[in-house]
Amino acid sequence: MTLHVEPPHAAGAFADARQARRAIRSGDWRGHTSGLAPAHVQGNLMILPQALASDFQRFCQLNPKPCPVLGVSEPGVRTLPALGEDLDLATDVPGYRIYENGEMVSEVGDLTKVWQDDLVTFVLGCSFSFEDALIEAGIPLRHVAQGRNVAMYRTSIPTQPAGPFHGPLVVSMRPMKAADAIKAVQVTARMPAVHGAPIHLGDPSLIGIRDIGKPDFGDAVAIEPDEIPVFWACGVTPQSVAMAARLPLCITHAPGFMLITDLLNRDVPYR
Amino acid sequence: MTLHVEPPHAAGAFADARQARRAIRSGDWRGHTSGLAPAHVQGNLMILPQALASDFQRFCQLNPKPCPVLGVSEPGVRTLPALGEDLDLATDVPGYRIYENGEMVSEVGDLTKVWQDDLVTFVLGCSFSFEDALIEAGIPLRHVAQGRNVAMYRTSIPTQPAGPFHGPLVVSMRPMKAADAIKAVQVTARMPAVHGAPIHLGDPSLIGIRDIGKPDFGDAVAIEPDEIPVFWACGVTPQSVAMAARLPLCITHAPGFMLITDLLNRDVPYR
Repeated sequence: MTLHVEPPHAAGAFADARQARRAIRSGDWRGHTSGLAPAHVQGNLMILPQALASDFQRFCQLNPKPCPVLGVSEPGVRTLPALGEDLDLATDVPGYRIYENGEMVSEVGDLTKVWQDDLVTFVLGCSFSFEDALIEAGIPLRHVAQGRNVAMYRTSIPTQPAGPFHGPLVVSMRPMKAADAIKAVQVTARMPAVHGAPIHLGDPSLIGIRDIGKPDFGDAVAIEPDEIPVFWACGVTPQSVAMAARLPLCITHAPGFMLITDLLNRDVPYR
Repeated sequence: MTLHVEPPHAAGAFADARQARRAIRSGDWRGHTSGLAPAHVQGNLMILPQALASDFQRFCQLNPKPCPVLGVSEPGVRTLPALGEDLDLATDVPGYRIYENGEMVSEVGDLTKVWQDDLVTFVLGCSFSFEDALIEAGIPLRHVAQGRNVAMYRTSIPTQPAGPFHGPLVVSMRPMKAADAIKAVQVTARMPAVHGAPIHLGDPSLIGIRDIGKPDFGDAVAIEPDEIPVFWACGVTPQSVAMAARLPLCITHAPGFMLITDLLNRDVPYR
């Protein structure tokens, strides 16, 4: 199973979200979005036929930590003004993945040719925003420093099911010193729109992770003797759940090719 | 070395702080104060000659987590209206301990006969307030359930010294499940006036605790396999530091015989 994981942060290129979206829309920017317009919130994308949308919306409401909804489009509508005045959901992400019956059938840079009048787009908060807040708070993040993907794991914690959507919670893990973990709880608790406070810390086996050295997605990262692993609900959860549900159609962003919104990271605690 | 530790919570007896103080003042109540006037903030007491007060005040400012100052009296003055309109610092605590050169010389129920015109009283926040908030938040506290003292440990973390006041941080430890520890960080971070967020969690050896089963003060408590120890800065720190400084004179409350203030626990997050 291929999953949409977030790549490491890249150097910033655009100061402004609209400018970044325009470069992506025109095809001038074809890379991943990590570090682009760094002050702005980036979102995970889940595009579904309307027939599945209400179940997915309910799934998100039941599982707000892995699925913090930043915005939902009207059926068939490609704009989402609340997240960006000029935003076009079919063109403003540099890479989309199209799934049929749980299998990826194509990866495209533009959805205009495959757009359907019944498609509903969900934009979900992602950990880029809270990672910036952690770094800002003076907490070192090893995977960022090493230019790697964050380590992600399937857990034994079930999500609350809704319609066809069900399956285990996926978490991301960041190792840190205990004092930083305590600080990180305080920083991220204020950001429920981007996964919020951790869901676990310490012994990985208590949440069903057998080998912390072997993440299910992303890259392994060392845990030093004076560090503990800290686990956050991860935006890969809804993708994993949607694929397991073998939906007739589902479109997501490609790994690390996120939607750049007009929202500011600094406003996330107040959403 | 005898230290002033807090005993387990007792059943409530007075709804009102003033009523409780009056019963203590008249000698009608001679027991410990845990659970008395349960909505009200109780404080640790440190009474020092004026010559030492400015160093101690500085020590508290340098070490706000173990020494959160709720109020300071004027020299020689027995009232502290900010903490209780009718409050008498020399009579309203059911037990005081008098130390000379670091040794306890007497335990009395009233300070009127030994009061001096140069005495300055510090009232410091105590963990009763945050324990109530934790229980209110649905986090079980084993030492409370078992009717024991909280377990306390000297650490390898030095306090910031001021004048004669110096020595290691003393912490209290409460074992809990990781999800509750994450919640407890959020609850107590909002209460800096009563020790605030934990200072450590997980491996005790990282803060110099050799045997978690052998607390330096209070009672040992079991840590279950699915729990981690969570450590808070403890109000025993200033007492321990004051005794180690072998001050010519220093008066504290007796263990668990606290000052009941008019402040409400529910207002603590907003101080």
